[in-house]
Amino acid sequence: MGLERILDAESVAVVGASNNETKRGYQAIRTLLDEGFEGKIYPVNPREDRILGFKCYRKVADIEDPVDVALITTPAKTIPGVLEDCGRKGVPGAVIIAGGFGELGREGRSLEKEIVEVARKFGIRVIGPNTSGIMNLKKSLNLVGLHDTPRGDIALLTQSGNMALTLITEAKLKSHKGISYYVGVGNEADVKFHEYLEFFRRDPETKAILMYVEGMRDGRRFLQQAYKTTTEKPIILLKSGRSTTGKKSAGSHTGALAGLSEVAKGAFKRAGIVVVENSDELFPVAETLSTLPTIKNRSVAILADGGGHATIAADILTDLGIEIPELHEKTQAKLKKMLPFTASVRNPVDVAGGTDADPGIFADCAEEILKDHHIGGLLVVGLFGGYGKRFAESLGLVEEDTAHRMGKLLRKRKKPIVFHSLYASEKTHPLELLRYYNIPVYDSLDIACKCVGVLADYGDYLKSYHARTNFVLNWGEKAKPWGKRIISKAREEGRTVLMEHEAKRLLSLHGAPHPQDILARTEEEAVKAFHVLKGRVALKIVSPDILHKTEAGGIKLDLNTESGVRKAFREIKGNALSFNPSADIRGCLVCPMSDDGTEVIIGTKTDDQFGPVIMYGLGGVMVEILKDVSFRVLPISSKSAERMIEETKSYPILNGFRGRPPGDKKSLRRLLLAVSELAEAYPEIQEMDLNPVMVYERGLRVLDARIILKKNDD
Amino acid sequence: MGLERILDAESVAVVGASNNETKRGYQAIRTLLDEGFEGKIYPVNPREDRILGFKCYRKVADIEDPVDVALITTPAKTIPGVLEDCGRKGVPGAVIIAGGFGELGREGRSLEKEIVEVARKFGIRVIGPNTSGIMNLKKSLNLVGLHDTPRGDIALLTQSGNMALTLITEAKLKSHKGISYYVGVGNEADVKFHEYLEFFRRDPETKAILMYVEGMRDGRRFLQQAYKTTTEKPIILLKSGRSTTGKKSAGSHTGALAGLSEVAKGAFKRAGIVVVENSDELFPVAETLSTLPTIKNRSVAILADGGGHATIAADILTDLGIEIPELHEKTQAKLKKMLPFTASVRNPVDVAGGTDADPGIFADCAEEILKDHHIGGLLVVGLFGGYGKRFAESLGLVEEDTAHRMGKLLRKRKKPIVFHSLYASEKTHPLELLRYYNIPVYDSLDIACKCVGVLADYGDYLKSYHARTNFVLNWGEKAKPWGKRIISKAREEGRTVLMEHEAKRLLSLHGAPHPQDILARTEEEAVKAFHVLKGRVALKIVSPDILHKTEAGGIKLDLNTESGVRKAFREIKGNALSFNPSADIRGCLVCPMSDDGTEVIIGTKTDDQFGPVIMYGLGGVMVEILKDVSFRVLPISSKSAERMIEETKSYPILNGFRGRPPGDKKSLRRLLLAVSELAEAYPEIQEMDLNPVMVYERGLRVLDARIILKKNDD
Repeated sequence: MGLERILDAESVAVVGASNNETKRGYQAIRTLLDEGFEGKIYPVNPREDRILGFKCYRKVADIEDPVDVALITTPAKTIPGVLEDCGRKGVPGAVIIAGGFGELGREGRSLEKEIVEVARKFGIRVIGPNTSGIMNLKKSLNLVGLHDTPRGDIALLTQSGNMALTLITEAKLKSHKGISYYVGVGNEADVKFHEYLEFFRRDPETKAILMYVEGMRDGRRFLQQAYKTTTEKPIILLKSGRSTTGKKSAGSHTGALAGLSEVAKGAFKRAGIVVVENSDELFPVAETLSTLPTIKNRSVAILADGGGHATIAADILTDLGIEIPELHEKTQAKLKKMLPFTASVRNPVDVAGGTDADPGIFADCAEEILKDHHIGGLLVVGLFGGYGKRFAESLGLVEEDTAHRMGKLLRKRKKPIVFHSLYASEKTHPLELLRYYNIPVYDSLDIACKCVGVLADYGDYLKSYHARTNFVLNWGEKAKPWGKRIISKAREEGRTVLMEHEAKRLLSLHGAPHPQDILARTEEEAVKAFHVLKGRVALKIVSPDILHKTEAGGIKLDLNTESGVRKAFREIKGNALSFNPSADIRGCLVCPMSDDGTEVIIGTKTDDQFGPVIMYGLGGVMVEILKDVSFRVLPISSKSAERMIEETKSYPILNGFRGRPPGDKKSLRRLLLAVSELAEAYPEIQEMDLNPVMVYERGLRVLDARIILKKNDD
Repeated sequence: MGLERILDAESVAVVGASNNETKRGYQAIRTLLDEGFEGKIYPVNPREDRILGFKCYRKVADIEDPVDVALITTPAKTIPGVLEDCGRKGVPGAVIIAGGFGELGREGRSLEKEIVEVARKFGIRVIGPNTSGIMNLKKSLNLVGLHDTPRGDIALLTQSGNMALTLITEAKLKSHKGISYYVGVGNEADVKFHEYLEFFRRDPETKAILMYVEGMRDGRRFLQQAYKTTTEKPIILLKSGRSTTGKKSAGSHTGALAGLSEVAKGAFKRAGIVVVENSDELFPVAETLSTLPTIKNRSVAILADGGGHATIAADILTDLGIEIPELHEKTQAKLKKMLPFTASVRNPVDVAGGTDADPGIFADCAEEILKDHHIGGLLVVGLFGGYGKRFAESLGLVEEDTAHRMGKLLRKRKKPIVFHSLYASEKTHPLELLRYYNIPVYDSLDIACKCVGVLADYGDYLKSYHARTNFVLNWGEKAKPWGKRIISKAREEGRTVLMEHEAKRLLSLHGAPHPQDILARTEEEAVKAFHVLKGRVALKIVSPDILHKTEAGGIKLDLNTESGVRKAFREIKGNALSFNPSADIRGCLVCPMSDDGTEVIIGTKTDDQFGPVIMYGLGGVMVEILKDVSFRVLPISSKSAERMIEETKSYPILNGFRGRPPGDKKSLRRLLLAVSELAEAYPEIQEMDLNPVMVYERGLRVLDARIILKKNDD
């Protein structure tokens, strides 16, 4: 069922309604009345007859008319019973305020499980528990208790009531924007992030979705929904709980599991989500993206009435990867005519006092600058909006005219304009006019610049979206029964680890190069294998009971004689048995010695929130010391595999450094796709480790591979 | 001369005074009157008789009484004449507002030079040109035109008038703090940053120094002065102009040369300066450091009335390297008693509604938390200060009491308390009380956390300061005459590059290992050298005309027979002559082949602002691809040399990675000190390049060295 009937509810039962003004059950009804909710309100409390003029019901089931949503304000332990009551009445949705569930540990978790079971039984969709509530500003359906929230087109989806309060306060103090819906997601026991997202994607009133997330229960489906959404409307997201301590607090807050922070962030960005690091930037970025056109070419002009602000802005924009190109000669010539000789006209444009007597010159300059084809957007920094206040009242009128001209210029050129003004928080009339035209104004240079940065980033994303192919190869559909057999065999033997030859075989079934290794059960077979392989070989122990082969003396390298192979076989067996006398020894893997190439590492693991995740990096010091690796949520496309390889800092080494031959990137990409396919095809796999993989100028070899299965009770 | 008579001036001549209200020469006098300056004011303008009631003088020299400072508001080209006039009168200081000097290119530079010459001739100290002016709040000496600046204990030293305006506006809007002095540094033509800094260091009224810097003319002396200052009072600094475009704008703004940004930042930090990256943080950090005690152990507690704010704060603090340790069991037990069962008491402490009915519980919690010996400071986040406004007026009174208790707690425990409050900008009475007790309150979580971070960083700096030794070894005092001879010889031959053997000899004079290399002028000498060195050798061309030896075929490696050496000597000579027929060939350097070790690179260059700077890094991909290097301004202490080695990301490789023998760090440190000494001892050196240096388990070898001298006209 969709969430429409809940989020657009026209009748609300308040369970735990009260005549005591300090109780949430009183405040909830008071708020609905104060905010002008036009739907029906049904207080429910067995000990009251009337509350705030409404008839009070003993239970939800007693209400005669249909009820869209039950706002439940009673304590945790009462919830299962209340939900049963709602279920009997056929209420489609419940908002559960109480904390004391999954966020508090085991006992809370089992209570949470119980309410989900009751909800499923009756087909009730549950928001929360541990939520601050929901708001629908269009219908004045306010189940939160935040007053005076301005109505507008930004949907708020958060895991913290206080953050919602912060964002709404900012909206009021610093913008002309407002809220369409607010949802406090709470513990996500039933309705999950991706479902709200889908609702907001379809809602015509919502132009941008602002999210505060500590952890997600189904990151994978959220990403899929986000990928669809971000081409239609922007999602702006702050992910917290990344520090260990942060995690602890997030854990006790919403009971969500905070996942691999970097992986999440990367996955969010690739789904087109604008990830914000700094909570101060969250609302401004949403404000900016919800209305302004994007920047198409990452090139911006800065217009300033003072060098310091211009210099700082140029620094910040450059750090954000924004170009500040020199203006076209003609543009410079025109600006020169308008401005004093001490002005700078290249970009940043510093008017050097040229606007002191006439702030209208800002608009003259802006018109010329935005005519310049190389310029995709404009950032104005300094004192605009305060000339009237600071210098002479008459200048304020000129500023107002300038604001109108700026607004029309934005509409005409369809290039975004963002203002920094020292007077932003004073809301002078010229600045309010700018905001009316959807030109955002901030008193923080950092925030104004950040908004310019995201306009460029989001522009890039939208441009690249249609060029992208996200298909996944599927070499292995036919091979899957064979693969399943390898896994079943391990399961039958009670193992969760595949032996090296099994892992390599599984990989090769899905597109990795066929291993040349030969399994030799006896010394004679080892000798035969040595002759088949021709050249130097290595022997490695094969035993389900020995995971760390080196430790057990289970590896002999660089053997090039028959007698050497024989001796090695016997020694390995001896070593293994003295390491673990009861080990089930299946023989040795005879592998050709590898030539020198570039060592890389590929691994996967299963993340709680996002499922299988792949890691790639150059071997040796690059991974061990410098942690120079790239990550993706699986599955990956061919393009993603390519980017994973290219985005490591050490990529130049693989690409042929100091005259060394380059590695075979095509084969490497193919191997990454094989690993991706494997992880998708066999959900039983918990993690994989291909370490090392030797990449040559042509081809590559997986020298060692480990695959670990999920425990059976997972 | 000190700057007292200028910055504390009791008589001001305003040159270019005017009766026209739009002129700076009118506004300057108006401002002095409005602000209540009690000293003497002397308007100077040959075309006026009286201005604002004051007698107007034709020239400065006509003024009967002594004049401390001349504020010159006339255009650039008039300045030399005006300064002559001031000189004849014996005025000790001048503040020059006009732009149009060094910041505008060659012509401006020569005009700037001219005014410096006039100033020197008469002993006038010049502030600016291209300055917004100066202010002394104690004496109401306001030569800027910024009104209503609150008086206090923070000195502002900036290169941008607009940034000063921004900072003063913030002071007014967001704090209880004010300004002691303001100096617009301008082009630093005469008085430089370090001189102002010394003045503020001595000024008893100034408790913190806040700087905005785009570029410095004498970074070296500034660092020396800063090093002295920061143990007495904090310096908070924002350095901009780091991006190329930023540099362009900074260049046209104050004519200062923006230097190596990373080097500068590192040098600032090591001098104890608190370097701020984000302009929004500048004033809050100064406010915090000017009054609060530092955090002694980097361990902080977070006290919150909502999980979201706590989680975000924990993330930011963790990123800043702050510990958020679990509170002591006893503390937790006490908090548990005060708070509802859903509260979190480990740290962050989330009161979970426990303060809703009584915000005084914040103070109860804070008292317990700051008793905990492991906790060095407290960050309170959330809605405090708004309970009265948001919930019930009576709670506002409880909040006031809580603020008093918090203030007393700060005084008692001497551990800093910082507040984040959603209501910070509304200046509610409880929040104003906190500010009265010097507890800062911010509405930005990021800024509140940043302030906590710098309290810990500055605490660390002060702790480490007294433990530091900054002595510099001086092996080479006696060797200096020998070294000077090597350099003179090169100079005599008209060279700016030392040949490899000269460079190596110079290094060894100052503590680098003696090179075993032998200069062989003839084939016979080369053979002799080969026998002396015993073992494999390399031959390298020695010629002042051949800088790139490999390119000229001037290197032969791995020679281990007499005939091989002979052949190599002849071939090298032949190659060199066909490369450059007129080359002056001095012979070959016979060098023992080096064993395998860890390759490192050491270099120096001369920075425009900070003089000689040293770079160190591991050779190969680490430098070439990953740019993994460390920098210091020279000279360096033994401790600095050690840190330079240890702070590279690739340090573990040198320290013995994967069973490899570690490199000889003691010898490496000694070599860095030798290079440091060299750069100090011979100011003629422009840059050095020791590449590669091979570091062994014991000892090291400089395999190649290049030293370039400054051009003679430098």
